[in-house]
Amino acid sequence: MLSKNQTKEIQFLHHKKYRDQQKKFIVEGIKLCREMMQTKSESIESLYCTEHFFTTNQTLISQTKIKYSIVEETGLKKISLLETPNEALIVAHYFDDSSKPLDFQNEFSLYLDDIRDPGNMGTILRLADWFGVHQIFASPNTCDCYNPKVVQSSMGAILRVNISYQTLPSILENQKIDHVYGALFNSPSLYTQKLSGGLIVIGNEANGISEQNIQLINKAITIPASPANGSESLNAAMATSIILSEFFRQLKA
Amino acid sequence: MLSKNQTKEIQFLHHKKYRDQQKKFIVEGIKLCREMMQTKSESIESLYCTEHFFTTNQTLISQTKIKYSIVEETGLKKISLLETPNEALIVAHYFDDSSKPLDFQNEFSLYLDDIRDPGNMGTILRLADWFGVHQIFASPNTCDCYNPKVVQSSMGAILRVNISYQTLPSILENQKIDHVYGALFNSPSLYTQKLSGGLIVIGNEANGISEQNIQLINKAITIPASPANGSESLNAAMATSIILSEFFRQLKA
Repeated sequence: MLSKNQTKEIQFLHHKKYRDQQKKFIVEGIKLCREMMQTKSESIESLYCTEHFFTTNQTLISQTKIKYSIVEETGLKKISLLETPNEALIVAHYFDDSSKPLDFQNEFSLYLDDIRDPGNMGTILRLADWFGVHQIFASPNTCDCYNPKVVQSSMGAILRVNISYQTLPSILENQKIDHVYGALFNSPSLYTQKLSGGLIVIGNEANGISEQNIQLINKAITIPASPANGSESLNAAMATSIILSEFFRQLKA
Repeated sequence: MLSKNQTKEIQFLHHKKYRDQQKKFIVEGIKLCREMMQTKSESIESLYCTEHFFTTNQTLISQTKIKYSIVEETGLKKISLLETPNEALIVAHYFDDSSKPLDFQNEFSLYLDDIRDPGNMGTILRLADWFGVHQIFASPNTCDCYNPKVVQSSMGAILRVNISYQTLPSILENQKIDHVYGALFNSPSLYTQKLSGGLIVIGNEANGISEQNIQLINKAITIPASPANGSESLNAAMATSIILSEFFRQLKA
């Protein structure tokens, strides 16, 4: 049973301002909560779950030694952000986001330049996970990775991909990065250019890559389109999937 | 000024049942309505627009000789499905969806096997357009391409990509298609297999490709993932973007 105060405390975490103050966020759903217990139990503050979830996951819950409360479905509904709350909700501490030096000679990573849509952000995390990119970077104005919609749409990738919010100049100052890639018009084709390790800048959904960051790109690439194409651009998540796929094909496959 | 009856008639088109009865649908927004007039004016039944849209597009409107009504913003709000109605709304007739025989020796196309999400459907149309696929196929249970969310999220690709709803066996009966591709687990890598023209089956968001259609695939492919990947799958639109990109790279770039 949840007290009024507990309910309120968790509801506050629906809002970024309070999440940032508390450095805590919400993880929901059977699959994601199980995965969180299996791989990031040290970050869990508390699990709120139904009787049914508790009985079917008792071993895992006792192994992880986390704090838990069994709640009624009505109580879960009050703290959940899902239309149909799903048996379990975890309040977790923000992950350690300090970026470790990456081997940018051989590895590629992403710099998200003001990606704003939580769905796109979640999709990009999932793509990064798929293609083995475990550390990505994002501009300070990029969508909050602890936004519940990002957490849900990342399908668990948020647990495996580390996101460090920094300006592009500060990353370039602190890491040895020879190649800064970005998709720009009238540039060499992504398919025919020999790709190498480096940082790939992904632009904002509406405005693309910012003027000051364009200056820092030294390897411009273009995603070729059919000459008959009538679309002006691909969306950020689609562009990311095509670019990451080609980097993976050339460097890792 | 819109009469009550006109308003109701258009509002009915928000629903698939009535769209299918009338074989009419709604196109909204300045850009899409302009494009519709430029490329598909023969399908337009009527344009409803603000005074401002009319004066700035007078030449185009008179060239296309379409029926139009100038409406107040409050009237537009009543017939629109957008949160912020955008100056113009067109009621259009369904496009001719009869599929022409494609040269499947050299061309590739998509078969959407029960894609249900309008956003995914719009994204896939946009990708098809980008990579020059102007005729695609979809199972009868795939999301309605005249769903307003599909029309909007396709960013105009709905005007350039023809969609024919048919079962996979009926397509294979009527067209000469040697290669039927589909992404399945434990299959040869998309990157190293020599791709050719053919039909690419894209599975449903939750259940993948249906059992009976799997039987019809004779070229199974896998999108390789990093060994460290923790995601079980990519979503349908991401998978489509990666697959189409690789077909385009090998066959057209």
